[in-house]
Amino acid sequence: MKKIKAGIINVTGYAGVELARLLWQHPSVELVSITGRSAAGKKLSAVFPHLAAIGLTITAELEGNVDVAFSAMTHKASAEAIVPLAKKGVRVVDISADFRLKKVSQYAEWYDFEHPAPELLHTAVYGLPELHRSSIAAANIVANPGCYPTSAILALAPAVKAGVIDGDIVVDSKSGVSGAGRTLTIPTHFSEASDNVRAYGLGGHRHLPEIVQELDALSPSGHVSITFVPHVVPMTRGILSTCYASVKDGKLKGGKEELLQLYSEFYKNEPFTKVVTEPPETKHTLGSNLCLVYPLLSPQTGKLVVVSCIDNLVKGAAGQAVQNMNIMFGFLETAGLEALPLYP
Amino acid sequence: MKKIKAGIINVTGYAGVELARLLWQHPSVELVSITGRSAAGKKLSAVFPHLAAIGLTITAELEGNVDVAFSAMTHKASAEAIVPLAKKGVRVVDISADFRLKKVSQYAEWYDFEHPAPELLHTAVYGLPELHRSSIAAANIVANPGCYPTSAILALAPAVKAGVIDGDIVVDSKSGVSGAGRTLTIPTHFSEASDNVRAYGLGGHRHLPEIVQELDALSPSGHVSITFVPHVVPMTRGILSTCYASVKDGKLKGGKEELLQLYSEFYKNEPFTKVVTEPPETKHTLGSNLCLVYPLLSPQTGKLVVVSCIDNLVKGAAGQAVQNMNIMFGFLETAGLEALPLYP
Amino acid sequence: MKKIKAGIINVTGYAGVELARLLWQHPSVELVSITGRSAAGKKLSAVFPHLAAIGLTITAELEGNVDVAFSAMTHKASAEAIVPLAKKGVRVVDISADFRLKKVSQYAEWYDFEHPAPELLHTAVYGLPELHRSSIAAANIVANPGCYPTSAILALAPAVKAGVIDGDIVVDSKSGVSGAGRTLTIPTHFSEASDNVRAYGLGGHRHLPEIVQELDALSPSGHVSITFVPHVVPMTRGILSTCYASVKDGKLKGGKEELLQLYSEFYKNEPFTKVVTEPPETKHTLGSNLCLVYPLLSPQTGKLVVVSCIDNLVKGAAGQAVQNMNIMFGFLETAGLEALPLYP
Amino acid sequence: MKKIKAGIINVTGYAGVELARLLWQHPSVELVSITGRSAAGKKLSAVFPHLAAIGLTITAELEGNVDVAFSAMTHKASAEAIVPLAKKGVRVVDISADFRLKKVSQYAEWYDFEHPAPELLHTAVYGLPELHRSSIAAANIVANPGCYPTSAILALAPAVKAGVIDGDIVVDSKSGVSGAGRTLTIPTHFSEASDNVRAYGLGGHRHLPEIVQELDALSPSGHVSITFVPHVVPMTRGILSTCYASVKDGKLKGGKEELLQLYSEFYKNEPFTKVVTEPPETKHTLGSNLCLVYPLLSPQTGKLVVVSCIDNLVKGAAGQAVQNMNIMFGFLETAGLEALPLYP
Repeated sequence: MKKIKAGIINVTGYAGVELARLLWQHPSVELVSITGRSAAGKKLSAVFPHLAAIGLTITAELEGNVDVAFSAMTHKASAEAIVPLAKKGVRVVDISADFRLKKVSQYAEWYDFEHPAPELLHTAVYGLPELHRSSIAAANIVANPGCYPTSAILALAPAVKAGVIDGDIVVDSKSGVSGAGRTLTIPTHFSEASDNVRAYGLGGHRHLPEIVQELDALSPSGHVSITFVPHVVPMTRGILSTCYASVKDGKLKGGKEELLQLYSEFYKNEPFTKVVTEPPETKHTLGSNLCLVYPLLSPQTGKLVVVSCIDNLVKGAAGQAVQNMNIMFGFLETAGLEALPLYP
Repeated sequence: MKKIKAGIINVTGYAGVELARLLWQHPSVELVSITGRSAAGKKLSAVFPHLAAIGLTITAELEGNVDVAFSAMTHKASAEAIVPLAKKGVRVVDISADFRLKKVSQYAEWYDFEHPAPELLHTAVYGLPELHRSSIAAANIVANPGCYPTSAILALAPAVKAGVIDGDIVVDSKSGVSGAGRTLTIPTHFSEASDNVRAYGLGGHRHLPEIVQELDALSPSGHVSITFVPHVVPMTRGILSTCYASVKDGKLKGGKEELLQLYSEFYKNEPFTKVVTEPPETKHTLGSNLCLVYPLLSPQTGKLVVVSCIDNLVKGAAGQAVQNMNIMFGFLETAGLEALPLYP
Repeated sequence: MKKIKAGIINVTGYAGVELARLLWQHPSVELVSITGRSAAGKKLSAVFPHLAAIGLTITAELEGNVDVAFSAMTHKASAEAIVPLAKKGVRVVDISADFRLKKVSQYAEWYDFEHPAPELLHTAVYGLPELHRSSIAAANIVANPGCYPTSAILALAPAVKAGVIDGDIVVDSKSGVSGAGRTLTIPTHFSEASDNVRAYGLGGHRHLPEIVQELDALSPSGHVSITFVPHVVPMTRGILSTCYASVKDGKLKGGKEELLQLYSEFYKNEPFTKVVTEPPETKHTLGSNLCLVYPLLSPQTGKLVVVSCIDNLVKGAAGQAVQNMNIMFGFLETAGLEALPLYP
Repeated sequence: MKKIKAGIINVTGYAGVELARLLWQHPSVELVSITGRSAAGKKLSAVFPHLAAIGLTITAELEGNVDVAFSAMTHKASAEAIVPLAKKGVRVVDISADFRLKKVSQYAEWYDFEHPAPELLHTAVYGLPELHRSSIAAANIVANPGCYPTSAILALAPAVKAGVIDGDIVVDSKSGVSGAGRTLTIPTHFSEASDNVRAYGLGGHRHLPEIVQELDALSPSGHVSITFVPHVVPMTRGILSTCYASVKDGKLKGGKEELLQLYSEFYKNEPFTKVVTEPPETKHTLGSNLCLVYPLLSPQTGKLVVVSCIDNLVKGAAGQAVQNMNIMFGFLETAGLEALPLYP
């Protein structure tokens, strides 16, 4: 079987390097080009010794004729890199936020830049396969979801779509430090992050509009209200989101069995999103593309509580990007993503 | 100044050993007796080499005539140890849950035992100085609050008392592993707890009725509804609680200034509970008796969000017990608790 | 291609569960039976939710006719389980220590039991492929090396064999906590192991005679003197060994180039053991079967220093066991072991 | 009792902030001035919220007439700041390396700068109280030892002085990440340092000449040979050094009792350095000024092995600086340093 040629724009961040790891081992992909500004000219192995098996050299620009490009650039720069590629007909999976939001004004509001190609926003597809699989298959630009949105939307989608939620939803997320990337900052310094938990983004985190956009679209009323507070906990990988909502009067009268049935039915054919009956832990997903979802009704208050877990760099970034590519190119959806979680 | 004599029942758990550390350095206390079942007969330094400076030997029962006893036993056993002491006139600070709940039926419901001395439940005082300082001063039995309740009640008390909350409250807490004690279990094994976040107690955690009891008493309506989900994060000490509630129509029209004012006023004379204007982190409290409280209104949804931080073994256990003793014996409330947090 | 049938004896420890992860994805192996005493009768997924994809049930004894059995039992019990299998002609890879030592008296001395089948000790092969590849291919019992010995022997073998070392060798190893297994102990409790480094086994660690046996056999003089001190550091996986020795007069006159040449030549055809020119880190091996070896001469003292890194559960246990199986059955030596390290 | 006035130059690094914590609580010291370049003009509490109790503002230069100044500047800058102070008669404790080495040429060799005041090098005293207590009492400039040298010298001093060591000494140290300071670097990024052990400084670490200088001076032969390899392990605080040496023929014939006696005698009057009879752990020193020393003879090889533990920011930096100040000003040597280790 002929392999497609793939390139990674900005391989030197954590999403980029995880993409390299996954694509290198993909049975239908040949990784042919990797870029990175500050590291251009260096062997990948010089920057990331654990990837010594990949013999590639980092270049300033994509080289060779790639069939698919993954952009792991930061926002704004990513759109600028992608637009010319898309116009040349290269299919793109964008790990940045630049094609996730449909309303062009939100880029100015949340990301502080004018979108360079608003006309592409509505041809781009939000790359959450559980919601948009068939559109992804046909898309030229797939906007890979953010890590928090992946965990929050997958936790809430069945309940929102079924219209069982009344009023505000709280999403309380706990992320490993790698979610903040490889950039050097005081809060990600080991001595500061270790033995520490902190809340951040309390004024409004950039992943909020994504969550709202996707859940609005699922909601029978067309509108959800989300209070989202992300936290950083002292681990490298993983996100656990705990979501809280009131149940609408008259709904879920069948209690936890009905709730479990609702969730199980929603995800019954999903290769990676699994409804579980014991509280999941981030360690159950380490290094894998799994998303574990655990819904329950609080015995004390009747509140709907849903706990979800992912590896933020796999299902929350590079793994989902590969899953999207698999769908776009008609590969087995699990190709290159079969690894079981690493435990302990 | 004459020192009072103090004893610790069950010094070998994390709360007990932290009590030993704090009492040893207290200017008005002589630590004279420490007990522990399995370790009886051993020097304290043989079990805890870091406490080599304390020359005491662990005994099976309290020895000497102590003026105050701290019980760090588990529930049920603690009440059994305390009742005879209390009857002899020894003043007691109970780190266990055995005198926290006022309704005797809750011991059977949540802790699965019949309370041995229900007649003492209403003379015992819930030892949260911020709410019950004057009663603590006069009490013979002080029920030291749980670690989660300390963080949750202090986060919510000002808003609940002011009647600004409408409907359900969500308390999402993140605790270090030491909260589970020194007992050996699979979830507290390093290889399992490291690089992991998990939710637990989803069916109802034993600290919930405490939180409800205290907030009910503060609420103008006499009733609050709390959904409480504790989580374990990979650090040794610290609890961060993020609390969410809707604001009652017509309340807090003054926005964040009014909210900050409400909280600042409530805690203005507190030596340890501080209202802060930047999101606090558990590391800001490590080894100290501080509780940091950060209230805000979500700019997107108007939701009340309050983040609080404590060191679970200090303000959440041994430090608060010493604070209670200080109040009971008329010492400076901060005596023995002046240590600044250890950072980084 | 027909797959061989494999079984794992005692799947419930960390080596066993890692074997399950690796064998499940091996292209030439069908995992047909897994045993575990306390968990017998349970689905594997009930004990290890991350392995839900493996549909097997844990049984008390191996079932089905397996071609190869992996024993992840503790010492003594392992030999007792293996001997009847070996007599039936099942080929065995023993993760325990029970067939590693050639001198039968050492089992009594170091492991405190009489070996039940001393006659098999000399047909068993010490399963370090870098030293014994051809014997492994023909063996019926392969004694999989200990984690520390793997790192120490691979660090020292080229220098010892070349006879360049004079006098005593120091091996100072730093291991993650998973090396102590899944058994519950105070030192492996999260709150005790976190933020902590400790030395142990100072009176003599059981892995010492293995290291000595293998290096004695390589040494031109037939004898090495090793002082070995293991340490536990607060991470889950990984061993880094730093080895120190004096250089014999007249040897390595070519300095670091000669040293690097000596090591590179020794490992030139090895698929997993790589000589590196920058100091390696355990994270460079996480989840992979790599052993990274970095030799140098101290510029100040001329001392030979060799740093080696492995993932203790992969090259130090389950991965090396799979590598041995690959050699025994004529598979590609890297089959099932191609995963690149997980980073960060 | 009148308090002396103290100032801290460069309070914003980890040693500086730890000095602030300790001096703030010292019974005989008034902390009056703290400096920091980038943070000048800010309240200390704005940069370090955990120190909110200290009401000081960070300034560009020391203010007020201080009796003692602590410099926590980096090397070279520290000497430049200290020299004018020393000439004004302010007594100084220098946390940097700038007055540790007696041979002026070593500053160029190891630290790459010309020492600005070589004439002061021989009036400055190396501030290890266990070796130089009486000189410290009289000194105007005390050069506070490096963290690694503190652990290594205290581990080896009794044996070196007694002349029982033959030939080369190996010092293998394991440090927490805070030893690298608060500066942002890839190796100290949480996601890189977590779950990782690495060796560094293999070409020669700057702390080596200090160790050699002090042990040379103690050695009957006037000369020791040290191979020193530092490692970073994933914890915030703590250093554990494992030291290895051969015993000279005819020495220590009394075995471990003689060895223990030698060490116990050497440190018998020390308030902080304690000889222990079980292997110490870094957690036994957390937040305290203790140095624990555990000497033994390997039962297998007769090698002398000494394990030592300190908190690198206390006995390895700020605590030892306070201890030196106590000696310089005739305070109780333990004043302000009585805190027991924080455990767990």
